[in-house]
Amino acid sequence: MTGRLVIAGLGPGADDLVTPQVVQALDMATDVVGYIPYVKRVPPRPGLTLHASDNRVELDRATHALDMAADGRTVVVVSSGDPGVFAMAAAVFEALDTDPEKWADVDIEVMPGITAMLAAAARAGAPLGHDFCAINLSDNLKPWDLIEKRLKLAVAGDFAMAFYNPRSKSRPEGFARALQVLQAECGDDRPVIFARAVSTPDEMLRTVPLSQAQPDMADMRTVVIVGSSRTRIVGRAKGALVYTPRSVPA
Amino acid sequence: MTGRLVIAGLGPGADDLVTPQVVQALDMATDVVGYIPYVKRVPPRPGLTLHASDNRVELDRATHALDMAADGRTVVVVSSGDPGVFAMAAAVFEALDTDPEKWADVDIEVMPGITAMLAAAARAGAPLGHDFCAINLSDNLKPWDLIEKRLKLAVAGDFAMAFYNPRSKSRPEGFARALQVLQAECGDDRPVIFARAVSTPDEMLRTVPLSQAQPDMADMRTVVIVGSSRTRIVGRAKGALVYTPRSVPA
Repeated sequence: MTGRLVIAGLGPGADDLVTPQVVQALDMATDVVGYIPYVKRVPPRPGLTLHASDNRVELDRATHALDMAADGRTVVVVSSGDPGVFAMAAAVFEALDTDPEKWADVDIEVMPGITAMLAAAARAGAPLGHDFCAINLSDNLKPWDLIEKRLKLAVAGDFAMAFYNPRSKSRPEGFARALQVLQAECGDDRPVIFARAVSTPDEMLRTVPLSQAQPDMADMRTVVIVGSSRTRIVGRAKGALVYTPRSVPA
Repeated sequence: MTGRLVIAGLGPGADDLVTPQVVQALDMATDVVGYIPYVKRVPPRPGLTLHASDNRVELDRATHALDMAADGRTVVVVSSGDPGVFAMAAAVFEALDTDPEKWADVDIEVMPGITAMLAAAARAGAPLGHDFCAINLSDNLKPWDLIEKRLKLAVAGDFAMAFYNPRSKSRPEGFARALQVLQAECGDDRPVIFARAVSTPDEMLRTVPLSQAQPDMADMRTVVIVGSSRTRIVGRAKGALVYTPRSVPA
């Protein structure tokens, strides 16, 4: 029996940032699989089974979703933001890659979503309007030395940077070290944007100069954007706008 | 009179990838401003004036939009993809920054969209599932040496990369040089994804090993994604999937 597996991005939180493509996929699903707070965003209805699981069980969740699709079900794996950016799409393909033949008949489709850094950037202005890097600051799945190396190379290239998963209760020290690296390598006035839970009722946006950035300004619901050397702030009574110009003079 | 300026992302092309937020903003607009092919995507209606302009007049377009909003109109500047990624948001803020007082009363909001690299990545699998860089390969607004420097640093950091504006008729040589840089620094089998006009009737997706990548595989409607050293391909009868695993072993 040929089932279908969709890996869908729910966007940063607001309903009006979910694409119609994803809404339709959820309408057709028999099963929705994902981390508890993301599955909670899907309204229950008859014929739909919600499978919510805890964090850090991504591969089990992916395998479960593939197995249900192989049984002929219509499964949607939900991520917040975009499923391809530090989210479930890579996890599903890691699971698939352990035994591609087992799930050879499953139709698989990834549906993009508004990823957190783009929602945050939009709220702040256009800090990612020029070349940028996206870096997951969690060292759960990679050595910290690699993160630090990438930070230094991103500074050397004068990229703007967006950091996902900057800080959790179990890893409070990493983001402090990241800020130390940046403070040693960049100017004091480099804008740093802390964007928490953008587009939800818990939204908080704060922009500070790098010299005033503190580790506890971020948590796991925060995306942090650090400007390049050319990022500017336009002061306005209606709220400052942060942007990185498109051009770099020769 | 206080007007309103929205800078909105229309996504990569398909209607079902436009967010409801943007649809509503377009429904309320008195004026839509943008590059000709993007304005064409907005259906005409009574009470709405469409202002389509040619490419490379971004600052004039931005100033015009700000002026109309200052006159009390409800203006939407449209970009394809996300307006904050190599698109109109930075251009509007560059214009605003020339004389912030002049437009002090205008309400400004950026509405994110599905940017081309995320639509392309979704179609290919999850090649951006780990740390990555986004680089505009056009040297219209920055020196080529800076682009080449960033390419080399991105390779040194083993980032995956997404290239916007890889190649135009007026700049055929840049992308050829970029491929030479990558071919000198990366393994021959590094996956390179050419994703053209994703989600439109003109969509074309092609993945080749770096050694076989050719400059003429890209044009201005193509986003190019280059994997990291850890990017893998899962061969399937239903079409190969390219993904970058979430983890890097210590």
